[in-house]
This record gives sequence, C-alpha cells and structure tokens, in this order.
Amino acid sequence: MNSSEGQNIHNLAKRLWSINRSVTGKGVRKTLNILKELVSSLQIFSVQSGTKVFDWTVPKEWSCEVAYIIGPDGNRLCDFEENNLHLVGYSIPVNKTISLSDLQEHLYSLPEQPTAIPYVTSYYKERWGFCIAHNERMKLEDGDYHIVIDSCLFDGALNYGEILIKGESDKEVFLSSYVCHPSMANNELSGPTVLIYLAKWLLSQRTLRYSYRIIFVPETIGSIVYLSKNYKKMKKSIVAGFNISCVGDNRAYSYIPSRDSNTLSDIVAQHVLKWIDPEYHRYSWSDRGSDERQYCSPGIDLPIASICRTKYGCYPEYHTSLDDLEVVVTPEGLQGGYDVLRIALEVLEKNVTPKVTVLCEPQLGKRGLYPDLSIKGSSNKVQLMMDFISWCDGNHTLLEISEIIKVPIWEFYDLCCQLKDHKLLEIIDE
Amino acid sequence: MNSSEGQNIHNLAKRLWSINRSVTGKGVRKTLNILKELVSSLQIFSVQSGTKVFDWTVPKEWSCEVAYIIGPDGNRLCDFEENNLHLVGYSIPVNKTISLSDLQEHLYSLPEQPTAIPYVTSYYKERWGFCIAHNERMKLEDGDYHIVIDSCLFDGALNYGEILIKGESDKEVFLSSYVCHPSMANNELSGPTVLIYLAKWLLSQRTLRYSYRIIFVPETIGSIVYLSKNYKKMKKSIVAGFNISCVGDNRAYSYIPSRDSNTLSDIVAQHVLKWIDPEYHRYSWSDRGSDERQYCSPGIDLPIASICRTKYGCYPEYHTSLDDLEVVVTPEGLQGGYDVLRIALEVLEKNVTPKVTVLCEPQLGKRGLYPDLSIKGSSNKVQLMMDFISWCDGNHTLLEISEIIKVPIWEFYDLCCQLKDHKLLEIIDE
Amino acid sequence: MNSSEGQNIHNLAKRLWSINRSVTGKGVRKTLNILKELVSSLQIFSVQSGTKVFDWTVPKEWSCEVAYIIGPDGNRLCDFEENNLHLVGYSIPVNKTISLSDLQEHLYSLPEQPTAIPYVTSYYKERWGFCIAHNERMKLEDGDYHIVIDSCLFDGALNYGEILIKGESDKEVFLSSYVCHPSMANNELSGPTVLIYLAKWLLSQRTLRYSYRIIFVPETIGSIVYLSKNYKKMKKSIVAGFNISCVGDNRAYSYIPSRDSNTLSDIVAQHVLKWIDPEYHRYSWSDRGSDERQYCSPGIDLPIASICRTKYGCYPEYHTSLDDLEVVVTPEGLQGGYDVLRIALEVLEKNVTPKVTVLCEPQLGKRGLYPDLSIKGSSNKVQLMMDFISWCDGNHTLLEISEIIKVPIWEFYDLCCQLKDHKLLEIIDE
Repeated sequence: MNSSEGQNIHNLAKRLWSINRSVTGKGVRKTLNILKELVSSLQIFSVQSGTKVFDWTVPKEWSCEVAYIIGPDGNRLCDFEENNLHLVGYSIPVNKTISLSDLQEHLYSLPEQPTAIPYVTSYYKERWGFCIAHNERMKLEDGDYHIVIDSCLFDGALNYGEILIKGESDKEVFLSSYVCHPSMANNELSGPTVLIYLAKWLLSQRTLRYSYRIIFVPETIGSIVYLSKNYKKMKKSIVAGFNISCVGDNRAYSYIPSRDSNTLSDIVAQHVLKWIDPEYHRYSWSDRGSDERQYCSPGIDLPIASICRTKYGCYPEYHTSLDDLEVVVTPEGLQGGYDVLRIALEVLEKNVTPKVTVLCEPQLGKRGLYPDLSIKGSSNKVQLMMDFISWCDGNHTLLEISEIIKVPIWEFYDLCCQLKDHKLLEIIDE
Repeated sequence: MNSSEGQNIHNLAKRLWSINRSVTGKGVRKTLNILKELVSSLQIFSVQSGTKVFDWTVPKEWSCEVAYIIGPDGNRLCDFEENNLHLVGYSIPVNKTISLSDLQEHLYSLPEQPTAIPYVTSYYKERWGFCIAHNERMKLEDGDYHIVIDSCLFDGALNYGEILIKGESDKEVFLSSYVCHPSMANNELSGPTVLIYLAKWLLSQRTLRYSYRIIFVPETIGSIVYLSKNYKKMKKSIVAGFNISCVGDNRAYSYIPSRDSNTLSDIVAQHVLKWIDPEYHRYSWSDRGSDERQYCSPGIDLPIASICRTKYGCYPEYHTSLDDLEVVVTPEGLQGGYDVLRIALEVLEKNVTPKVTVLCEPQLGKRGLYPDLSIKGSSNKVQLMMDFISWCDGNHTLLEISEIIKVPIWEFYDLCCQLKDHKLLEIIDE
Repeated sequence: MNSSEGQNIHNLAKRLWSINRSVTGKGVRKTLNILKELVSSLQIFSVQSGTKVFDWTVPKEWSCEVAYIIGPDGNRLCDFEENNLHLVGYSIPVNKTISLSDLQEHLYSLPEQPTAIPYVTSYYKERWGFCIAHNERMKLEDGDYHIVIDSCLFDGALNYGEILIKGESDKEVFLSSYVCHPSMANNELSGPTVLIYLAKWLLSQRTLRYSYRIIFVPETIGSIVYLSKNYKKMKKSIVAGFNISCVGDNRAYSYIPSRDSNTLSDIVAQHVLKWIDPEYHRYSWSDRGSDERQYCSPGIDLPIASICRTKYGCYPEYHTSLDDLEVVVTPEGLQGGYDVLRIALEVLEKNVTPKVTVLCEPQLGKRGLYPDLSIKGSSNKVQLMMDFISWCDGNHTLLEISEIIKVPIWEFYDLCCQLKDHKLLEIIDE
C-alpha cells in the first residue's frame, strides 16, 4: 500500500471547488462531466422535475448566475460570484430595495463562528436569503439595501452519474458519494474525488472478484431517485458497500455502521480501521446523516456502512466556508481516506473461505515450510502459519480467521497463496 | 401518569388490617368479600379440604376466635385478639396449665429484634405456639401459665378470588397476589390492595388489547390449587404477567426475574424500572420466594416476573409485627407500587410492532413534521423521530426500538399515533 | 475424593525414567510393556515404516545403544548412556574424528540455562548432533574430538498402546497421552503414568456410563497414525476427551481449549478447574502444542480439551534435563493431576439430565425434606435443594444447573440420588 494519489485527488478537488453545485442544475452536470474525464465509462443520467420517487418528488431545477446585495454606501455585499455559499440554495428571484431590518430576516450567520459563512438551503419551501459572516453582518448600517437574485426555478432535471465495473461475479459492491454541495471541501468534495480515484484503481486491476456499482448523486433526493429505479436489482446483488463522505481531513478515522451494524461492510470497515488506526471513532446508527439513511432504510436494507476521516457534524468547519482545501482538507488527508477505502475493497476482494486439503496437520517440513530441527522455542511465523491452517476448515472466511487469530487479514494474503501453490489449501465457492 | 390512588389504597389496607387471615378460613373470605366491594366481578371460589392438587393436598380449614395465656400474676399475655400475630398459624386447640419452662418450648421470639412479634405458621404439622416480643419474653417469671387456644381444624375449604377482564385478544396478562397473611403491611396487604386498584383501572379503560386474569389466593397452596385447575388454558393464553407482593414501602424498587429471565414480563419490568428508578434492585431467580415459584416451575413455565418496592426478606420488619401501615407502608409507597405496575401494564398494551409504509425516508417536510430550512444543528426531537422511523421495519416492537434508541417507550406513544395519523406507519398484527 | 495414588504414579515414572524413548524403537515398546503390567488389557499395535498416514509417512525406526564423544584429553563427553538427552534424537551413525570448530556445528546448548541439557530431535531430516550443558560446552578446548554414534535407521515399525473399556453406552470418552520423550518428567512421563492409573480406576468402577478409548502414542506422528486408522469411528462415537500431558508438577492447574472451545470437554474442564483452583490458567487454542493439534484439526474435529498442571512451554525446565522427578514432578503434583482428571471423568459419568416428576413445587415437608415450621430465615441447604429442583425441567444437564446455581456439580450428586429415591426426579435419556 504505497499509493500516492493524495496530491492528484487534491488537485481535482481544487478544480471542482468554485462550481455552484446544488441538488439540481448546471453545477451538478459540470461536476459530473469533469469526473467523466477521469473515468470515461461514467454515465450521466437525467430525471425530470416532478417525477415521483417513493414518498418524494424530484424538485424543480434551480439556476442562478448573479446574486448580490448593494448596501447604502453603494458597495456590493454577499456576492454569489465571490463565494457561492453567500446565497441560500434554491433562493427565488428577487429584485427590490428593502430596509436593513427587513433584510435581517433573510440573513443567516453564526455568532459563535463569526468569520464563517454558513451553508443554508431551502429545497422544499420557496424563500430567499443570504449567508454572511457574523462579523460582516454586525457592520451593516441602517439604510436601503438593494437585493438582486437573478435565479430561476423551472421544470428541468436532476442528474447523477453511474459507473458499472464488471467483475467475475454478478455480486456487487456498491460505492456512493454526493455532488450537491457548493464550495466546501471535506463535506463534500473529498467524497466524489476520492471515489473517482477508487474507480480508476478498480479499473486498473487485472481481475476483480466482484462487480462494482459506483454512483455520484445529489444527497438524499439523489439516492432516493437512484434507489427508486434500481433497488430491486440492488437488493439481489449487493453484498457490501460504503457511502463515501468526509474522507479528506487528516485528523481522525471514523466508522458509521449500517442499521444492521453487522453486515459484511461493517465487519470489513471495523477490521480495517482497528488495524490502521486503533483510535478510530466508532459511531452508532443514530449518528448517521448521509445517504446510508436511505440505503439502510426499512425495506431497502442494503449492507452499506461508512468509513470517514472526521465525520460530518463532528468538526467545527462543517457546513461553513471554513471547510476548505487549505486548512481542513489536505493531500495527506485525502491520501489516508483513499488508502483506507482501497484497503477495505481489497479485503472484500480477498476475503475467501480457505479449506485445508489434508486431514490432520500437513507435514510442512517436507515442503520446506517448517524447521527440520525441533528445539525449544519456535518461530512466530511458523506459529502463525500453523494457527492459520488450523482454522482453514471451510467454515471460516479469511476475515473471520484474522479476527480469531487477532492479526490484520493482509498478513495472510501471501501465506494463503503459498499454501494454495503447495496444494494444501483449496478455496470454497460461496 | 398523575394517578393519586396511594391514599385510597392505604385506606383499604387499614380496613383489612385486623382480619385474621391464614391459608384457609373466615379471614380469607372476609378479605375477598371486601375486595369484591371494589370490583364486583370478583368471583370467590371454594375448594374442599382434602382435595389433591398436584403433589399437595388442600389442608383442613383452621378457625380460631380466642387465644391467650394467663400468667402467674393473672394477667393476659399474647392475646390473639390484640394482635393476631401472637398465635402460631394453624395452632391446635389447647386448654391447660403448664410451667414456664414447658411454655418456653412453645414460644417464638426474635432476640435481635426484641420489640417485634414474629410471624410463625405450621400448616402441615400439628402443633401449637405463641409469638411474643423478645423483651416481653424476658420478663416472664416462673409459675403456672394457663394456655387457652380455642381453635379448630376441620374439613372445610380453601378460598380464592378471581377477576376475568375481556380484552380484544384472547391472549391474557396474568396478575396474582395473596391473601393469607394476618396483620402485616408490605408483605402482604400492599399486594392485594394495589392489585384491586389495578383491576379497577383496567376496567376503566375504553379498550384493552389483552384479556386480564387476576387472582387473589393464599400463597403457595392457593397458587397450586389455581394452577391445578387452570394451567393448561393458562399455558396457552398467558403472554405476560406479574406476581404482586411487597409493593407498599417507599424505600426502593425491585425486580425478580422469571425462571427464564427473558420473557416479555422480564423485558417490560426491566425497561420500566430502569427508567423509573435507575437504582432499582435486580434480583435473580435464586432470590425468588413467592408464587412465581409455582408459576415458573418446570412444566408450568408461565412468563411471570415480579416488580416490588422492597422485596420480601430484604427489609428488617419483614414477617414481624413491625411490618406496619405507619412506618413501613405509606400512601406514597403504595402510589409508587401502583404506578410502576400500571406503567408496566400500559407498556404491554402499547407495545405494538410498527412498520413504515414508504420505502426510503418519508418526506416529512411536506407534512409539517420537518424543518423546511436546512442549517447547521438540528433539533433533538426531529432526530428522535427520524431514529424511530428508521427502526419501524416491522421486525422490531416498540419496546425493542426503545431499547435500541435508549429512551423510555412512553416517549414514542404520541409519536407513533401521529405517524399513524399521517399514514406513515402501520401496525403489524402478531 | 481421597485417592492417594500420587506416590504410586511417581514410582512408576521413576521406573520408566531411564528408558530411551523416541517416536519409534525399543524404548517405546519397553515403556508400553511396563504399562501393560498395570493394565493387562492394554494392546500394543505396530505400524510399518513407510506407511502413508494422511499427509505423513511413518518414519524409519531408530535404534541407538552407544553414543559419546572422546575429547582431546581422552575423556568421554556427552555419553548417551549417562543421559539419553545428550544425543539428538534420530541421529545418524557416525564414527570419525573432527576438530572442535567442526564439532561446534553439531552441539546444542542453552546459554540462558547453562546447567541444562536441551532436548533436540531431527525426525524428518538426516543429521547428527549432541546436546550439552552450556557450562560444559564453554570448557571444551581445541583439539581432536572422536565422535561415536552407533545408531541405525531402518525399516521397522511405530508402536502404540490402546485400552478399550466398555461401558453401558457405545458413546466414548477418549483419553490420550504420549510415550516418545526420553528422560523428562513433566513432559512427558507424568502423562502416561497418570493415564494408566486413571485406566485402573475406570476398570475398578462397578458400572460405567460411557465406553473409554485410551491410547499411548508417540506424539504427532502417533496420533496421526491412530487417527488415520480410527477417525471415522471416533467421529461417530466420541463425546468428550482429554489429551493428557504435563500433569505432574505441583505449581499450577491449566486448561487448553479444543479448537471449538465449547465442547462438553471444555465445559467440564472449566467447571472442574474453577472449583478446584480458581487461579487456574486459561490458555487459548493458539497456545496448543500437543496431540490436540491433530484431534481438533479441520475435518477431524474431535471434542478434545486439555487439563494440565503447568503447561508445556510454560515452565523453565521444559524440554531440558532439568524437567526431573525430584524438583519438578512430585508425588503431590501427580496426585493433583490424577485427581483433577478423575473428577472430570466423574463429572462426565454423572452429568445426567434430571426432570422433576410433579408439576409445581413438590410438597417436600411430607417427605421430611423441608422444615415443618415456617419462621423468618431458612436454611441454605433447603434453598439449594429448592433451587436445584426448580431447574430440573428436563432441558438442563446437571452441569448446566450447577453453572446456573454457581456451585460445583458434585454438590448435587447425593441430592440427585435422594430425590430419585423419593421418586421426585427422573433421568431423561439422551
């Protein structure tokens, strides 16, 4: 595991930074098209506004090019072009002059984080508003404020991207991230950028045991749209998967369980994390907050867990303009997020069920695998091999054996091959 | 839960106080008739002495009006009329004069509780005796003691009371208490008095999910009699129940498991108690001592647990004249015992299995159940609702969901109704 | 349990001490013949060199009468006759003179235990060597060393002994120890000597519930040979068993689980040990090291656990000349090893499934089993009896009841008989 994609992923995130993403609109399409430059098999889908998806309806498409306020002194404030967080997502068009006190009802700021522009949206109720650093808000003086929001809400489409990678089996691993947040780094640009690099890595493998279903959707409504179209097939074929979000800061590793908490994804995530970072944070299902809410909902029940660096909602910069690509998300942080997920995918690929081919312990000495002289004290490596073989009963997966013996599964990858080469192990088909 | 029956229950206990109860006889009948004044549907049953009931035989009926000792100074001692604990239960008739040293062999006192008259019975071996405060015993002087016990043992009957309350289902909840102890308050008058008020409350409910089988029996032989007549039907229909004893002092809450320790009754009892009083005492099956001994015996195996205030045997006044309605059992204590059992019955009634009617999370915003503006920090109430819905998969009861989410089940009663009104939940029939 | 076989077992070990045992050869046969003197039904089997047994081949037979080194000063060193540990097991014949530096490559010593002669073997690769106390090795001076090893390796046989004891059931308990180590006491003479005395005790019993299969084999290759001939029958009939090794020192008790860790043997071993010595050492399957490696291997999967005093590899004298019959293994130590195993076998024999014959609690008073006067405070013995009866539901073995009630199973042996005599208990056939 000596990958060095952290810098490449960081560069990609920088390229995507200033695009104005929302649950619908040009920003999503532009983002998906850039991801498609990296993986050409990414397909972009379009679902019309007004389409019923389970209990929901695909919202109108939102578009906005220009939005700002002109203050009593003639200066521009909250210019959307300068920072797309300034405008409340899905704001309706406005062009009028109002008093400061009327304006105040449309302003959002965080007194406890006075330099941060908060991230605010109103997808399902028509309103308008601006987000502003609290320090700036405090400086506003009485007078007339001219409001310009040149937005429109219209029957358009919701878009998402999908990559299908065929492996030896029809059984699928599902990977999902989201592309609906404007200029914020850990939540969310780390997610789609790490995921597109994982897709590249999967495509570079000579063989894959599982097939992979990889999607880039607007959060919540996007995963609901995707599920409404695909959940029957998904329930049949998906054996594991991860929702990928907040994988770019270098401060912690975290795990959020599936609702079931004991799926293959949960077991893999916990195994990998405890050996990568024994201090990793273990959250509960009640701490969820992204698309696992849909993937694990009653009746959907997909085996999807989450591996994060610092989880959404658990770092101070979350959902503000402070969640940036300089202080919060770094090439090192992205590298760590990419690595831990890649290792988890490798575990899924290599987690076979080995069975020893002979009764009683094999005679390892004649194969040069065992010291030919018996003297007090024996090598740890031999002990580990003997322990491993003793559990190759065809009833335990490599992962289960690793948990029993208390070593990382990757310690057995080579040994397993070696014993297979000596015809001492066979792999049980599932 | 703002009931205020504590004082009423205490008044009833005072009324029942001086009646001389035993496993058979007039005292039991008188007690049952007073309980019937409160719940007229209480039926009183009679089983003849000599009737075989499993391994046991219904004993002779015991009657005693007068019993006392006249000391050498001509004064009456141990007058049964003054305190019915003075006479050993089931004492045979005596009328003779004996020396102090002969008398001593028939006296029972507690040196370590010198002011307490102990409670002693001898149902299955014919003998006579008096119980006396140890301080009084120490004052006895040599001389002739005239013993009068005007009792008789004869072929009569054992009596018990039964209330059957029909609910929507034939599945029954079973509640049992006992009426065989003379003037003692926590063990036993708290039991039948709290239980008759629970019966009144059940009868006041507009609808009941379960049917209720409520009995007032002499302890041990009474429950054996009742089981010998009813156990086959009971094994088919009883889904939960409680043996009710020692529910009147205000010092603690306690739980004694069924033999299985994991029946619905056990789960309900532990859920209720841990939220009512996190310091409640958890006993084990080995600490049992009342009719659960019969209800949970091999082959009977009913799902009966016990909720107490301070458990029999675990307070110093137990089985002595100090177990009174002044110091030990109070209106507050009885109120607490009544409340915790009523809450447990409500849990049984309301513990349905909810299932969400839509796939993926419902769109709560359009129903006014969710904030329409998304900004950092969300309300705990919304989080609780979303958590609750996420577990409404038709595989978890309300109680199981409460245990998972770690809140008292009653927090979900209103929410469950509200979501049902919005057609977002349906209730799975069992 | 007042056996006093410790001294007899110690005497037998002394008699077997100086015999030169190896995995094959005269020493094994001589040892088996002495064991047969104690239990005449012991049968000695012979399997030819070259026989294929699973993944292994029975090795050539090794014989050696004379082996020594003559130093530059004409004195004998490392004389095999003086201590059979001096010669590396399975050394090939040698008769030549070499320099000290050439000799050094064939010498084995333990610098950290400078007075100990280590135990070294080379069964599966042809080599020669001598074992020497490190202190002695340090004294060797430059010069010519004459090496004499008058050994031979030839197509002979591997031998093992077997005792079959027929009980009422065809279900078998399996006991195994090994006879391939030269002059060492805890590992191994304690094993076969304790086991032959256990066989004597089993044969002295009037009736036995189970049949017993008892074997004395060379370690590893011997158990593989035995399994290759018998494993199909063994898998059908064996319900429990112990590998018996290191049962002679008086310093600790230890338990090594079967691979499954939860077989009847594991449950019995842990139950017995925790009541005999609450400080006993609990090892894991990864700490195994004797024939349980074969008995519990994938596909063999016999329910075999190990009870030891101090486990092989866990005492400093292990596999050296310091593992002796004076300091390490004592009559007291052997007595303890014998007792704990005999108690474990008694548990297996007496671990029935009792079922009470009446519904509800039995009326114990009429049988004189219960106090006829009810007064505050009841005897512990009565409580224990009532607890016991309450679990005699035909679904719990005596051992399971003991674990629930938290008393040693032997506390119930007499009570169980007494209740059976009163026709209150019946024994459920398995």
